[in-house]
Amino acid sequence: MKVSTIVTLKKDVLDPQGKVVHQALNGMGFNNIKEVRQGKYFEIEIDEKDKKKAEEKAEEMCKKLLANLVIEDYKIIGSQ
Amino acid sequence: MKVSTIVTLKKDVLDPQGKVVHQALNGMGFNNIKEVRQGKYFEIEIDEKDKKKAEEKAEEMCKKLLANLVIEDYKIIGSQ
Repeated sequence: MKVSTIVTLKKDVLDPQGKVVHQALNGMGFNNIKEVRQGKYFEIEIDEKDKKKAEEKAEEMCKKLLANLVIEDYKIIGSQ
Repeated sequence: MKVSTIVTLKKDVLDPQGKVVHQALNGMGFNNIKEVRQGKYFEIEIDEKDKKKAEEKAEEMCKKLLANLVIEDYKIIGSQ
């Protein structure tokens, strides 16, 4: 099972990286952008055939290593 | 419209960052992981009510700035 997860900064946390991307896009002529926020994406291939178990494992990994829960949120977006 | 996109390294491109995460997870006792690959996630809020148009704009941004198409792939994963 390959589990896809996303780690993003919480809404109230400043995202300078996203801001730079926003400015760069503006400079290239993309004018109707309100906001850009950047996050991390992880594709974890787990040796586990059960979808639910694999996602639980991935969630545990997010909690313990991939996300800093003080300032970040994580989300399992799918598995196949 | 808020469009979510993912930028990942192509399959044949080495991903040292993912490898480090893999090793770290192994060291924490997660033993049945086959592979970890890391990518970038962008949430772009566009001032555009039409879903299709917003996604087209986001795709253009991916092609022109967010992804390096020589070594990376991009994917629009949703919009709301």
